Amino acid sequence: MRLRHKPWAREKIEQHPQYIVANPEQCKGKWHEIFEKDQPLHIEVGTGKGQFITEMAKANPDINYMGIELYDSVIVAALDRLIEANLPNLKLLNVNAADLAKYFTKNDVDRVYLNFSDPWPKARHEKRRLTYKDFLKLYEDLLVDGGEIHFKTDNQGLFEYSLMSFSAYGLLLKYVSLDFHKSEYEGNIMTEYEEKFSEQGNRIYRCEVKYQN
Amino acid sequence: MRLRHKPWAREKIEQHPQYIVANPEQCKGKWHEIFEKDQPLHIEVGTGKGQFITEMAKANPDINYMGIELYDSVIVAALDRLIEANLPNLKLLNVNAADLAKYFTKNDVDRVYLNFSDPWPKARHEKRRLTYKDFLKLYEDLLVDGGEIHFKTDNQGLFEYSLMSFSAYGLLLKYVSLDFHKSEYEGNIMTEYEEKFSEQGNRIYRCEVKYQN
Repeated sequence: MRLRHKPWAREKIEQHPQYIVANPEQCKGKWHEIFEKDQPLHIEVGTGKGQFITEMAKANPDINYMGIELYDSVIVAALDRLIEANLPNLKLLNVNAADLAKYFTKNDVDRVYLNFSDPWPKARHEKRRLTYKDFLKLYEDLLVDGGEIHFKTDNQGLFEYSLMSFSAYGLLLKYVSLDFHKSEYEGNIMTEYEEKFSEQGNRIYRCEVKYQN
Repeated sequence: MRLRHKPWAREKIEQHPQYIVANPEQCKGKWHEIFEKDQPLHIEVGTGKGQFITEMAKANPDINYMGIELYDSVIVAALDRLIEANLPNLKLLNVNAADLAKYFTKNDVDRVYLNFSDPWPKARHEKRRLTYKDFLKLYEDLLVDGGEIHFKTDNQGLFEYSLMSFSAYGLLLKYVSLDFHKSEYEGNIMTEYEEKFSEQGNRIYRCEVKYQN
């Protein structure tokens, strides 16, 4: 995503602690306390402008959602959506995915969503891909046993890499679609990027993998 | 593949025991004896008309190859190729893949190739797919430890199914390409079907998986 500098973004984020968690270190191990209901927590790592996570939260009121996004200038768009939707089961978190272990501990999260993550196609940037083994370890350390990652992308190279990375880590491939929008799957909720990209007739890849512990 | 009845095929097969192994039960555990050289053995399960295995045998004289094909009327085409090429490192075997355990024992084989296997798309035919778990067990029981399956297909559904089946069986996904003919892989040898299908601009899927024992 191209980033525009928005100097007012930081201030806007700080003005909405009820939507964008202000003190995430203090929530570790007790995230359910910031939500209205104590129910499963699904997080999206790299939530972008928030269409996916907002629509998921609307469609599934019995699940708590958290959208995690590093960039101020992007998360403010998700904030606008959330202010408008005013959902009790959705929060945003403005942190770096590489720091997840600071804010989450084992069993805090029931599912991780990765949608259209940056492919970082150069080999020397492999460690930045959100499906690199160090990230798979981070997710394992915050998920429940048998927790799942649900992953969508239009990037063939990232999907191929991720299938191999999941396999090498010992994750079980529960579901895979190599042309998801032509599959029989019902109830898909699209990201902004997914809508735009698939309108051009391109393929979306999707899989669900499960930790075998 | 559409099969034409060729009543003369059986007779032709029996006339060429130097190419199509006549007594496979007696070769179990000592397949190297029927080849000129004692070197690794790679088998193709469902070898069809034999273009792939013949070209592989030409390109890799330091590996022994065996093409396994059930149908008389198809294997005779592979036989014609082999008679013409007269390769010391290639034999054919006219048996059912489901019976592999009758003819092979542990460590007999170093690699299994599956190329454009019948997709058997109906759920009730799952057990017939050559990547069904019972077949993965058959291959494991004839391969060396850490042996590999190299699999190519144009069938999206079969490839998706196979990735899940490999994962559930605990196989390591070493390599995957979701558009193989546009990949950087060099030295691909095509099957007859692959040539025809890819000329139409369709995708070929390919993976390499490894037993983790």
